[in-house]
Amino acid sequence: MTVKISQLPPLQQFFRQASGLDNNEGDPRRKQIVLRLLQEVARVIEDLQISDDEFWGAVDYVNRLGAKNEAGLLVAGLGIEHFLDLLADARDAEAGRTGGTPRTIEGPLYVAGAPLCEYQTRMDDGSEDGTATVMFLEGRVTDLNGQPIAGATVDLWQANTQGNYSYFDKSQSEFNLRRRILTDANGCYRARSVVPSGYGCDPAGPTQECLDQLGRHGQRPAHIHFFISAPGHEHLTTQINLSNDEYLWDDFAYATRDGLIGEVSFVDDEARGAFMGVAGCFAEMTFNFSLRPAASEEVSHRSQRPRALQSA
Amino acid sequence: MTVKISQLPPLQQFFRQASGLDNNEGDPRRKQIVLRLLQEVARVIEDLQISDDEFWGAVDYVNRLGAKNEAGLLVAGLGIEHFLDLLADARDAEAGRTGGTPRTIEGPLYVAGAPLCEYQTRMDDGSEDGTATVMFLEGRVTDLNGQPIAGATVDLWQANTQGNYSYFDKSQSEFNLRRRILTDANGCYRARSVVPSGYGCDPAGPTQECLDQLGRHGQRPAHIHFFISAPGHEHLTTQINLSNDEYLWDDFAYATRDGLIGEVSFVDDEARGAFMGVAGCFAEMTFNFSLRPAASEEVSHRSQRPRALQSA
Repeated sequence: MTVKISQLPPLQQFFRQASGLDNNEGDPRRKQIVLRLLQEVARVIEDLQISDDEFWGAVDYVNRLGAKNEAGLLVAGLGIEHFLDLLADARDAEAGRTGGTPRTIEGPLYVAGAPLCEYQTRMDDGSEDGTATVMFLEGRVTDLNGQPIAGATVDLWQANTQGNYSYFDKSQSEFNLRRRILTDANGCYRARSVVPSGYGCDPAGPTQECLDQLGRHGQRPAHIHFFISAPGHEHLTTQINLSNDEYLWDDFAYATRDGLIGEVSFVDDEARGAFMGVAGCFAEMTFNFSLRPAASEEVSHRSQRPRALQSA
Repeated sequence: MTVKISQLPPLQQFFRQASGLDNNEGDPRRKQIVLRLLQEVARVIEDLQISDDEFWGAVDYVNRLGAKNEAGLLVAGLGIEHFLDLLADARDAEAGRTGGTPRTIEGPLYVAGAPLCEYQTRMDDGSEDGTATVMFLEGRVTDLNGQPIAGATVDLWQANTQGNYSYFDKSQSEFNLRRRILTDANGCYRARSVVPSGYGCDPAGPTQECLDQLGRHGQRPAHIHFFISAPGHEHLTTQINLSNDEYLWDDFAYATRDGLIGEVSFVDDEARGAFMGVAGCFAEMTFNFSLRPAASEEVSHRSQRPRALQSA
């Protein structure tokens, strides 16, 4: 027995009323979005014969998800954030906007206001000296013709060797492994950092709870996040995912993409190490970014997504 | 320019993978539900051309909603909980299950484990003596033939004169205005309480934020919640909404229904007041409940919705 009522006129009228479409206050766009969501939720409940226990379990899940601030993690894990990238790619292709470094997901762990440096910086606070592998990262930001973009902002953030991010991991110092670097006259940036470990969802958190029910893990390959921006160019949100990580093509957040694999070279050369100020083996990686011209001023900025410390 | 990709085979395959349908672990039912939700979310994003700012604003909203434990309040305010009642009514009608007191929404403010009493009880702790209007509430629980049901559990909860509920309002004593009453041999229950005021959403909370965008208020009429249960009968979740309240038919949670209006009589009779142990005007209300026979043991219990203190 499948009883369906949501398409009946009285129900559609009820959803319009609940969405505020019978009043003149509020925001018309939000009303349209809420109406559509109500219609879809009702249809899903009917079509899948969602039980009361399932529905209220889902409501409770939303409460627990929000209480842990994991909604952004869940939309990454369910692939919705990756879908947004694919949709933006398709829109770009339709409009003839091609070329440049591919975009990929931002994830929920950006913190605004990291220290701003010129050309080069050290990103880690030294607290993992002796256990971490030092990594020298460098590259160039150019336009689609390969011309260097001087003064571009390379805003990068990464996990430590435990796969944890400062600010969210309170054991780390403020802005550890987070920096904004302005490129030099040749479009170059350089950073001394540590080789990150892959991030994993909190095993006791609501995102992993959902993934468990889907038979999925919640692991990411080691990676480094980037916002690259420069006046007159499209803002780029992307990541370098490190080659040789077991999760490189099995990323629970689907962020790995062709053109975004970083090849890490491990160097065991005492003389070079001494020159670089490092004892023992260290890592090197070069990664260049290419930006598209901005068709409007608006696309040269990142989205207004609410972010930690964004008022800073 | 409306670019749509979600119906393309590679995207549908991606959603299947993200839902875990390409692995043999986890829960098959959850996978089907998540797949459907992913498909619908993607279609809504495409159809309504949801911007990045709108999408990430919604993700942030879910975090704030859950952090305030208001998901249950929002689904009431958006009418989804009322829709579930209408759908259950339609299923009952289809199956020939008719008669009895109408159901209406539970709302998110039940607390399990209230004091259990026989026949009659006082529900309030006296903290509003002198300001509240004392209310005497009584009635009878019967089957569809009008035969009394002895030993039925009348589990009722209500707001105080400020429209606030104990447990959620920490200024009230434990289980204030919450009781479980077992009916006597005649199916009767009696309670001395206070006339409640209508509940209103937290003006600074995320539910009211959404309602504001829809041009809607977040007020309920004064009401009393009930779970009525007895072996061999369908569990009933319902409410009495008090007549003469300005929000009686303008309830933001759409809980008011025909057959669930409580008529309050205000009595200003010194002799009767003295007999009842009350100085000044008091209120009386009679409300009877009629339960349907249970077609299975399962329907004689309330849903497994997670509730406060439910392990108590």
